[in-house]
Amino acid sequence: MKQILILHGPNLNLLGEREPAVYGRQTLADINAELEKTAAAHGASIRPFQSNHEGALIDAIHEARHWAAGLVINPGAYSHTSYALRDAISGVNLPTVEVHLSNIQAREPFRHHSVIAAVCTGQIGGFGAYSYTLGLLALLHKLNVES
Amino acid sequence: MKQILILHGPNLNLLGEREPAVYGRQTLADINAELEKTAAAHGASIRPFQSNHEGALIDAIHEARHWAAGLVINPGAYSHTSYALRDAISGVNLPTVEVHLSNIQAREPFRHHSVIAAVCTGQIGGFGAYSYTLGLLALLHKLNVES
Amino acid sequence: MKQILILHGPNLNLLGEREPAVYGRQTLADINAELEKTAAAHGASIRPFQSNHEGALIDAIHEARHWAAGLVINPGAYSHTSYALRDAISGVNLPTVEVHLSNIQAREPFRHHSVIAAVCTGQIGGFGAYSYTLGLLALLHKLNVES
Amino acid sequence: MKQILILHGPNLNLLGEREPAVYGRQTLADINAELEKTAAAHGASIRPFQSNHEGALIDAIHEARHWAAGLVINPGAYSHTSYALRDAISGVNLPTVEVHLSNIQAREPFRHHSVIAAVCTGQIGGFGAYSYTLGLLALLHKLNVES
Amino acid sequence: MKQILILHGPNLNLLGEREPAVYGRQTLADINAELEKTAAAHGASIRPFQSNHEGALIDAIHEARHWAAGLVINPGAYSHTSYALRDAISGVNLPTVEVHLSNIQAREPFRHHSVIAAVCTGQIGGFGAYSYTLGLLALLHKLNVES
Amino acid sequence: MKQILILHGPNLNLLGEREPAVYGRQTLADINAELEKTAAAHGASIRPFQSNHEGALIDAIHEARHWAAGLVINPGAYSHTSYALRDAISGVNLPTVEVHLSNIQAREPFRHHSVIAAVCTGQIGGFGAYSYTLGLLALLHKLNVES
Amino acid sequence: MKQILILHGPNLNLLGEREPAVYGRQTLADINAELEKTAAAHGASIRPFQSNHEGALIDAIHEARHWAAGLVINPGAYSHTSYALRDAISGVNLPTVEVHLSNIQAREPFRHHSVIAAVCTGQIGGFGAYSYTLGLLALLHKLNVES
Amino acid sequence: MKQILILHGPNLNLLGEREPAVYGRQTLADINAELEKTAAAHGASIRPFQSNHEGALIDAIHEARHWAAGLVINPGAYSHTSYALRDAISGVNLPTVEVHLSNIQAREPFRHHSVIAAVCTGQIGGFGAYSYTLGLLALLHKLNVES
Amino acid sequence: MKQILILHGPNLNLLGEREPAVYGRQTLADINAELEKTAAAHGASIRPFQSNHEGALIDAIHEARHWAAGLVINPGAYSHTSYALRDAISGVNLPTVEVHLSNIQAREPFRHHSVIAAVCTGQIGGFGAYSYTLGLLALLHKLNVES
Amino acid sequence: MKQILILHGPNLNLLGEREPAVYGRQTLADINAELEKTAAAHGASIRPFQSNHEGALIDAIHEARHWAAGLVINPGAYSHTSYALRDAISGVNLPTVEVHLSNIQAREPFRHHSVIAAVCTGQIGGFGAYSYTLGLLALLHKLNVES
Amino acid sequence: MKQILILHGPNLNLLGEREPAVYGRQTLADINAELEKTAAAHGASIRPFQSNHEGALIDAIHEARHWAAGLVINPGAYSHTSYALRDAISGVNLPTVEVHLSNIQAREPFRHHSVIAAVCTGQIGGFGAYSYTLGLLALLHKLNVES
Amino acid sequence: MKQILILHGPNLNLLGEREPAVYGRQTLADINAELEKTAAAHGASIRPFQSNHEGALIDAIHEARHWAAGLVINPGAYSHTSYALRDAISGVNLPTVEVHLSNIQAREPFRHHSVIAAVCTGQIGGFGAYSYTLGLLALLHKLNVES
Repeated sequence: MKQILILHGPNLNLLGEREPAVYGRQTLADINAELEKTAAAHGASIRPFQSNHEGALIDAIHEARHWAAGLVINPGAYSHTSYALRDAISGVNLPTVEVHLSNIQAREPFRHHSVIAAVCTGQIGGFGAYSYTLGLLALLHKLNVES
Repeated sequence: MKQILILHGPNLNLLGEREPAVYGRQTLADINAELEKTAAAHGASIRPFQSNHEGALIDAIHEARHWAAGLVINPGAYSHTSYALRDAISGVNLPTVEVHLSNIQAREPFRHHSVIAAVCTGQIGGFGAYSYTLGLLALLHKLNVES
Repeated sequence: MKQILILHGPNLNLLGEREPAVYGRQTLADINAELEKTAAAHGASIRPFQSNHEGALIDAIHEARHWAAGLVINPGAYSHTSYALRDAISGVNLPTVEVHLSNIQAREPFRHHSVIAAVCTGQIGGFGAYSYTLGLLALLHKLNVES
Repeated sequence: MKQILILHGPNLNLLGEREPAVYGRQTLADINAELEKTAAAHGASIRPFQSNHEGALIDAIHEARHWAAGLVINPGAYSHTSYALRDAISGVNLPTVEVHLSNIQAREPFRHHSVIAAVCTGQIGGFGAYSYTLGLLALLHKLNVES
Repeated sequence: MKQILILHGPNLNLLGEREPAVYGRQTLADINAELEKTAAAHGASIRPFQSNHEGALIDAIHEARHWAAGLVINPGAYSHTSYALRDAISGVNLPTVEVHLSNIQAREPFRHHSVIAAVCTGQIGGFGAYSYTLGLLALLHKLNVES
Repeated sequence: MKQILILHGPNLNLLGEREPAVYGRQTLADINAELEKTAAAHGASIRPFQSNHEGALIDAIHEARHWAAGLVINPGAYSHTSYALRDAISGVNLPTVEVHLSNIQAREPFRHHSVIAAVCTGQIGGFGAYSYTLGLLALLHKLNVES
Repeated sequence: MKQILILHGPNLNLLGEREPAVYGRQTLADINAELEKTAAAHGASIRPFQSNHEGALIDAIHEARHWAAGLVINPGAYSHTSYALRDAISGVNLPTVEVHLSNIQAREPFRHHSVIAAVCTGQIGGFGAYSYTLGLLALLHKLNVES
Repeated sequence: MKQILILHGPNLNLLGEREPAVYGRQTLADINAELEKTAAAHGASIRPFQSNHEGALIDAIHEARHWAAGLVINPGAYSHTSYALRDAISGVNLPTVEVHLSNIQAREPFRHHSVIAAVCTGQIGGFGAYSYTLGLLALLHKLNVES
Repeated sequence: MKQILILHGPNLNLLGEREPAVYGRQTLADINAELEKTAAAHGASIRPFQSNHEGALIDAIHEARHWAAGLVINPGAYSHTSYALRDAISGVNLPTVEVHLSNIQAREPFRHHSVIAAVCTGQIGGFGAYSYTLGLLALLHKLNVES
Repeated sequence: MKQILILHGPNLNLLGEREPAVYGRQTLADINAELEKTAAAHGASIRPFQSNHEGALIDAIHEARHWAAGLVINPGAYSHTSYALRDAISGVNLPTVEVHLSNIQAREPFRHHSVIAAVCTGQIGGFGAYSYTLGLLALLHKLNVES
Repeated sequence: MKQILILHGPNLNLLGEREPAVYGRQTLADINAELEKTAAAHGASIRPFQSNHEGALIDAIHEARHWAAGLVINPGAYSHTSYALRDAISGVNLPTVEVHLSNIQAREPFRHHSVIAAVCTGQIGGFGAYSYTLGLLALLHKLNVES
Repeated sequence: MKQILILHGPNLNLLGEREPAVYGRQTLADINAELEKTAAAHGASIRPFQSNHEGALIDAIHEARHWAAGLVINPGAYSHTSYALRDAISGVNLPTVEVHLSNIQAREPFRHHSVIAAVCTGQIGGFGAYSYTLGLLALLHKLNVES
């Protein structure tokens, strides 16, 4: 059974608990549960991990090379500056899908560009929590097509 | 039954016929057929339209305000320069999902930014023909959640 | 009797029909009627033309060299990118006034500059439909002064 | 009776006296007289003021909040650098029309952008002394529509 | 016999008819006749096409993949902005020579760069109508050398 | 007894009189009174001066070299362009604290940078009228520490 | 009793121990003690925390939403790059004052701009250790005014 | 006898009185006296004027068109931003020499460029007070050659 | 008989000897021989000169003003930086055609712009050694048309 | 005996284990062993440390001020963004040599500049694992020369 | 007797011989003769040298450290790019005055900045051949004041 | 026996003779002698060459393709502008190591980037004369590993 690393970057642990009028009432736990269901429906499973530490995210990607078939990552604000995350992804050679809750090209200019995009398969953003579901579908589709 | 406009921008009519080793053997007709199936499975239908003419794409968006529930658009190379397409989308007030076959932020710098993104719900790119399927799913999800 | 080409660029056909709270209830037909009256009061007449097609706008400018005394143009979003429109205007050697409904230097940065301005007599923007009236007055004034 | 402040920025006192072949023989006094006539025809009157001192222009705007219904300003070269003038205009909350003798976007790059535009109703340029007349018409139109 | 598509971009239909003191008295028909002679002298023939519509130029390039051995294009003002034309050329895989009447790097800065150059064999500009003749010679030379 | 020059730049004379909902009801006189009290509590006194004239502000700084121990300045919009004010401050060699009512790096990009900062001891902004009080405390602290 | 989080960013643990001729002999412990006194004098208390780890600073901000009334932060070099810290501050909705030992706009260009400023109440810099005292005063003032 | 306007911009009134170790002990009065001698030796005379007010400098230039043969100007910090001074100089059509005490291209980047240079005959900088003498010689030379 | 200077810039002496798989086996001698034939066929002759020294290329251009009817130059890498070569060409007032082996706008960004183009009649690049032949034809055509 | 801190930044723990065809089969352990030998041959010893955490690298630099004679650092991707690492190095006042496996100025533009370079003695890159050996030699040379 | 090196950069050997209507009829020999007279009048002498070779100009500067008291240089087009000339001047530690025939800040943007200015005493431009005379006077003045 | 070309760029001939307090007392001859010893110790020899002429440096690189095994180059100030040197190095296909006396990324911005780096094996800078020794070691290491 294929296992997928779901990586949540900085500040995503706050999801759902605060400002529900803005971000909805879905917590990270809710999102992970939803993804677990989607994965199961496709004969796969997920391992979610959240950290506010850039280094911890890199460590998790490194470890994933021993067990994961692919990676869905929401790099949060590290998307725009972390060349170290970029090098980690290109270093482990796992298919990676980048997701964002918001449509980054529709926000402040510093959010328009992702320095990580160049080493990912694709990028999905703007659909709230559903961006993760689409990202997982995209990754599973790619793994099926290429396997 | 919800009807969705599927808009294919410049050069997408060449899909599948040429360089199949690169872009695969799927033609635009194949993609449209696949989307028709996905739409039907969700109780919706699609109307596809392709043009190499920026003006014709704008006309199609304008007309869609009389019949469509939403819009999936692959603006091709017009993504990077067409403020007129952007104004058309914001003018008709239909939920719009932008899709790309390739991961635009992983290509030449002039393709990194979409001037249309700011008026779309979200953006999906990098998954080949499957980007369209994901885009349609995203749009239908949004229409269901908000209706 | 002097004839003036009134050229409406992309998306201006939507005027009045949609978002009346924002753009007012005046349609393009209303504006044209208003301009017809203003022209008549000065012993002139107008021929209005709207298109979302950059090429059609260029064709119209070319044809105008056979019959028009001058040109009032609202290039819409093409203002910011269309060097082809610019070359068309400088090619036909007709006095041209550029008008905008909104005050373009007060909006998003990409709207601040008009690539067409350099070949026009002058630029008027920010007064809604009345920008057209002012533009026509300016053109007629220029034609009178120089004739 | 509505009173309008007509503000002439730096170097405009030289108008008409010098280089008549270039700028015409109209002096600032001629322009003011012309504007007085236009205002009278619409049941309004003007108070013109010229200064080469940025501070004096700001002072005049401040005082105008006690008596003026609106403001027509040709900020001359201060258009391109004076954030202080901009703050003065936004501070007094009077409808303001920016006018220029020349078409600023058709001249040297440093003249393309007006830092004052963002706080004005609209901008008119390129029609010589007639730009003022159009500016006054635009302001009176706005005052009538909104009153 | 090799057939060559000669593509004339926006505003080139005005050639020769207007401003003969500047652009000479050669019309587009004259240029095409001259090219027909040059082609015939090398055992080839041409099919010229002019349009002010970006989309029509793209359509013509697409159709040329069924009959043409190569392409000589003067993209006019679209040279500087049309990534869609660029994608069309790279999509049809025909050897393409870009020509300009004027020396674009000697004119306004916005004309210095051609976004199409990167997918063309070479670029020729500055020699008026003779640029086309040189472009055709260059294309025929390339076709002969490589065939 | 130490005397401090309090310098208020352009448009600050409007404080409190207008838009009280936004800027509060404190006038410049109120702020000066508050500063007088703070100064007195530390055995110092202030001399406030406001002008909309860049030159008058420079003159005031020059004169202050004969009597003042230091300078608290809110340069208003001159912060972003006035190299002349900068040279005046560096010319008189008085410790200077720059204050702003608003947090300038949180506003429009043109307000992010102060050309005067490089010759000041420090910068305080974002606390409304209380920014002045903090600025005066900072200056007095510096004068005490260094004396 | 109001509790305030005092957050010290990277390299601030070195304060006072090294280069006393440059930075003075005050250690971070001295600064915290001084702040404790200032807080007590206003009926408040502080909890200081220092880390060189961006993630640890974010974690601390997140936890503070359960107990703190506000936040004084010296983000050190993370000021100029850490959009993650910015998102953490805007995510917890606590009034935040940004302080710097030095006057950042008077140093190397890369230090001129703070990416965090946009989500803070205000910014204070240039007064050495006393910047913290001013920052705490500013925060307490704001809390008092708004409570 | 030719009369020359010597115009000293902002902060130049401080010359000689302060920081004599840096700028020397020559006051503006000394410089003017030196220039008077140089002028007299060439059968000319000078009228010096200093102001910290941009507007007063412009006024002085305007008045000079009634009596002066030419203009030597040290625009101080206004060199880098004052398009109004530039327009004043080009408006009065007097030969103008720009002088600077320091070598502006050897200082901070914001001092490298003079917006006034484009309308002056030439520019001299880097020789302290002697820059004025050279500037006066240059102007007299030009007046002699052209008369 | 017209004589043409053929100027080969830096590194062109390596042509043909090295990397024949890339640049072909044509040496500079071969190219010169080919050009000699083309010139002879048009009743002209050539004098070729190659140097890696910018100064030597300038010297050669200067001397050519005594004997040459025109100039074909491949400035190699000096194209992108040598304002001295540019001034040499504009100084001698000889018609000049700039040629490049490769299509410079299709290579690294630093090669996109030629600082010499602005003073040349035209520019040809991308056709290997045949670029020279086209350049000579263009120059001879120009000389014939204008003589 | 001199002790040297060898600091390996993010992703360097992957060395040798993966993509041996690209990066060779040398692991970080191999490199450290090689450096230990080089150090021993010069009467010195090393203490290597690797982390993917920016904060951990800063902590290690801080601690090194108690025991190390100098520092060889490969900052990996943090080279291009970490002003915090830069401040750490300048804070501890240890001679530091920056090394890179690859030649950073020959790679993607974002890798061209190191924000850390300005506080290091020198920079060595492009020689694979041997860059470390050269870096250690350079550091030992400097320590010998200056001791 | 003080000896001064007069250095003339690229293309200055053409002076006077060509385009006399533009540059006057003065040759470089005339200028040198004029400078010789000025030098003699001040008890000094000159050694002029012209070259189109950047390296030869550097060699001449190096040699001058054995005999010259100072240097007047017109670097021509090398002003804008030659960091090697800059390093030569700073390397020999001779007072250097930079002169230009034209007012470089009034010409094309690439001529606005001199990379050599930062290591020169001062800069003089815009007075034709007389710029040299002023430059020599400035250098002699400096040598007298400092000796 | 392997022979290595040691290339010293502009101004390096001044080394050691001048400003010994700054650059040390080592002359270029001393450096060459040191390198000869290092080379001999590794069974190789060197041929040093210095020139201030860009063209002479290019010539030397060209000739080296007949006898040298590799190249150590200190391009001096030509590092930052000479695309011709870059093309020479890539043209001769010899392994090349770039060295600098100073740490170029720690100096003025114009020295940060080397346009030659992209075609070199690696870059070493900041260690004074010892940079050359390290560069030679790096080159010999590379030649041994690859032979």
